[in-house]
Amino acid sequence: MTGTVPRDTGGPSFAEHEVIERIEAFRRRRPRLRDEIVTMAHGAGGKASAALVDAVFVESFRNDELDQLGDGAVLATPRGERLAFSTDSFVVQPLRFPGGSIGHLAVHGTVNDLAMAGARPAWLSAAFVIEEGFPIVQLREIVADMAAAAAGAGVRIVTGDTKVVPTGAADGLFVTTAGVGVVPAGRAFSAAAVRPGDRVLLSGFMGDHGTAVMLARGDLDIDADVASDTAAVSELVEAMVAAAPATRWLRDPTRGGVGTVCNELAQASGLGVVLDERSLPIRPVVNGACELLGIDPLYVANEGKFVAVLDPGEADAALAAVRAHPLGADAALIGEVTDAIGATVALRTGFGGTRIVDMLVGDPLPRIC
Amino acid sequence: MTGTVPRDTGGPSFAEHEVIERIEAFRRRRPRLRDEIVTMAHGAGGKASAALVDAVFVESFRNDELDQLGDGAVLATPRGERLAFSTDSFVVQPLRFPGGSIGHLAVHGTVNDLAMAGARPAWLSAAFVIEEGFPIVQLREIVADMAAAAAGAGVRIVTGDTKVVPTGAADGLFVTTAGVGVVPAGRAFSAAAVRPGDRVLLSGFMGDHGTAVMLARGDLDIDADVASDTAAVSELVEAMVAAAPATRWLRDPTRGGVGTVCNELAQASGLGVVLDERSLPIRPVVNGACELLGIDPLYVANEGKFVAVLDPGEADAALAAVRAHPLGADAALIGEVTDAIGATVALRTGFGGTRIVDMLVGDPLPRIC
Repeated sequence: MTGTVPRDTGGPSFAEHEVIERIEAFRRRRPRLRDEIVTMAHGAGGKASAALVDAVFVESFRNDELDQLGDGAVLATPRGERLAFSTDSFVVQPLRFPGGSIGHLAVHGTVNDLAMAGARPAWLSAAFVIEEGFPIVQLREIVADMAAAAAGAGVRIVTGDTKVVPTGAADGLFVTTAGVGVVPAGRAFSAAAVRPGDRVLLSGFMGDHGTAVMLARGDLDIDADVASDTAAVSELVEAMVAAAPATRWLRDPTRGGVGTVCNELAQASGLGVVLDERSLPIRPVVNGACELLGIDPLYVANEGKFVAVLDPGEADAALAAVRAHPLGADAALIGEVTDAIGATVALRTGFGGTRIVDMLVGDPLPRIC
Repeated sequence: MTGTVPRDTGGPSFAEHEVIERIEAFRRRRPRLRDEIVTMAHGAGGKASAALVDAVFVESFRNDELDQLGDGAVLATPRGERLAFSTDSFVVQPLRFPGGSIGHLAVHGTVNDLAMAGARPAWLSAAFVIEEGFPIVQLREIVADMAAAAAGAGVRIVTGDTKVVPTGAADGLFVTTAGVGVVPAGRAFSAAAVRPGDRVLLSGFMGDHGTAVMLARGDLDIDADVASDTAAVSELVEAMVAAAPATRWLRDPTRGGVGTVCNELAQASGLGVVLDERSLPIRPVVNGACELLGIDPLYVANEGKFVAVLDPGEADAALAAVRAHPLGADAALIGEVTDAIGATVALRTGFGGTRIVDMLVGDPLPRIC
């Protein structure tokens, strides 16, 4: 990272009421829902998704936990235990791709959402919607992938459901997992804790998963050896937080990619994010495939990565701790938080210029998770 | 209920090791999976569903919580809080039917599963798989139904997910909810607690939901005024348990109906269940519709009812408490547990004869929840 950005000195400029005001202001600026039917873009994790979630779900279900709009909700039990609770549906096609299957994704995705909420993932549920005629042998393989992924992540699949719909009423198999984890005492990641000068870490190469699934479809005549990065990052998060206990905020850049997650950070914190293009870790083969596909890798999904906002004094220790873990060997500090550009995301390019990184618009890579 | 059945006097005949032995013996007798593809019967909640769950899911995911095979798992947190955790996918067609919609079902179904595990339902997740082109106005209505159902049941929808699949890849909308509830200290419903002489209670008329959905499809030219019973029974369970603290076991007779739930009770407890046909509460209009459809109402789904096994000394008090609640006005004691007939379910008919009630075979009423 080159250049300097003014750092907060901890004075009254970030008093609680100001934090609340700037968050409220940017909530009001979230995109509006203007559509009459649901389109693929509403499922892509970008602008249209945010508009649908705000207008339909948050509006109707309104409560304090949901208003956090994180990867998972944090709940307090009568005995004062803090739990994280999260869910995701998986509709990826093809069901199996280089590096994994819908089974791996269904476990890793929910485990990672719990880890992003600060929890140690513990228990998962698994609900299956299966199209009549689906081969049992294929179902067994996917379930075995889920069992292996759960064992690897140290979680247990403790409850489930199976529904079957007639041929043509679903596309093979959809899997929905939900998860519960326990948040250690004293831990609270929050966008309200983010300060100017905080550093942004990405835990490894970006764009592997989305690129791998896109190429696995075979629609494009590109012969590139790209595997999904699907993995549980919960252990990696624990290693990082041990080295950087003041970690502010975490999010996994799945649908919408690193670019959209940084925009969510900007919206939620009311601060700007400046990314340094030369610091962004990306495999040359993924970069090349994205160029051929005409897609910006900043918007391509990852399934085994996280973006962390770190106290500047702990950033180097955090990076060292993450790099010491096999899943974090290619981690990098990719940018900085600033109060100089409003709640936007800017990319300093390799040529020394700067461009705005908006949220994902449309859905260039449908059904990747 | 006429006739008497020998009652257990609490002696050594039901020592712990015997309970475990008879449960193990009947687990071994669960149906085996012989199919190569998934069929509608695997989603019907009867014999084929049990075979699929045993052979594919329980076999792969094996752990103590899952082995309970209840409506939900009971988990213990580090601070000793006991939580119930449950999930269900909803694929009902049509999405709206007399008495409710997929939105009501998605909330009530998971709330009821938590209540069956002994918990006070608290938090829900909601994951949506939506077919491209689905009208936003219809989505808003379903989400409003979910919000109303959640408010009525005293639970909060705190986290969610939205996926969109291309036109033709799903049938409009599938909703998956998961739920977490808190189990009060000292409460533990378990089939291992069931004793000969225990009484069986059904909390109201049976078969309303499945019949209402079947008729709403309009495939049959039957003009009957039947509405789904979709409702949250958690408050009703609390009222009953207050009057009958020794309540042994609870299950909601959704897919597979009262007949299948009683078979699950027999399998899980290793004891027999004798039902009295004349005591079974059923609306004449539902009985008539089932006759025309050629379906036994014992296998028709309910979405706002439960089957409870009660200590015989508390059965009358439990019935009175349930009947005092609007949702339980038509409750009845429908049978008794016995050690005289093996782990089977028998029905004493109105004509004085007896017939065996097996688990549901096949799927006479697909996609009702």
